[in-house]
Amino acid sequence: MVQYTAAPLDASFAALSDPTRRGVLELLARADASISGLAEKFRMTLTGMKKHVGVLEKAGLVTTRKVGRVRTCRLGQLGLAAEAEWIERYRQLWEERFGELDKVIGELKLKEEDRGPKDK
Amino acid sequence: MVQYTAAPLDASFAALSDPTRRGVLELLARADASISGLAEKFRMTLTGMKKHVGVLEKAGLVTTRKVGRVRTCRLGQLGLAAEAEWIERYRQLWEERFGELDKVIGELKLKEEDRGPKDK
Repeated sequence: MVQYTAAPLDASFAALSDPTRRGVLELLARADASISGLAEKFRMTLTGMKKHVGVLEKAGLVTTRKVGRVRTCRLGQLGLAAEAEWIERYRQLWEERFGELDKVIGELKLKEEDRGPKDK
Repeated sequence: MVQYTAAPLDASFAALSDPTRRGVLELLARADASISGLAEKFRMTLTGMKKHVGVLEKAGLVTTRKVGRVRTCRLGQLGLAAEAEWIERYRQLWEERFGELDKVIGELKLKEEDRGPKDK
């Protein structure tokens, strides 16, 4: 199994913390796009979009290639497997932790019902 | 189905972009802890840990409660369901996109084999 160090998770989660960057990823998952095309679609300056694409590129989520005067963006090799894995593991721990609480609440409810059940 | 706006995803992904904060969550998933206890465990100043806990608290990932002079941290109500859902959807799109590429590579390999298969 591949071991992931902390650093890539840092960069990818930070990259995902912006709605424009998440939108760019969703768009590129459907088709490649130029930076100017992306800027237009997200109603943003070219400089602003360049920064967002830069963050995505550093995180390995996007690659860019310049042909002539156009820089085309496409999805990078990072499929967010390690990120999905971390969240999934956390969700399991979280559910176990809240499951304990639910059990206590469930037991309290049962006691309540024993004390005074209401007829239909 | 619950509809999530962009803002909570922003805060939670940003909260996850730090190894100490991810470590705190994993630790709290096992047991509640005081801020000073967390600071000690992560070899960090109290001020530094307070900041990290503040970020986690704002994102809904942790709740704190002060009893006397001790502030205790426990897991918040946010189980990262929306975050898992976003990543899962993206992973599917990503796999479809790279699946197309794999198909092309697979076809090229078949052609290569047709041209000159090696006997055992």
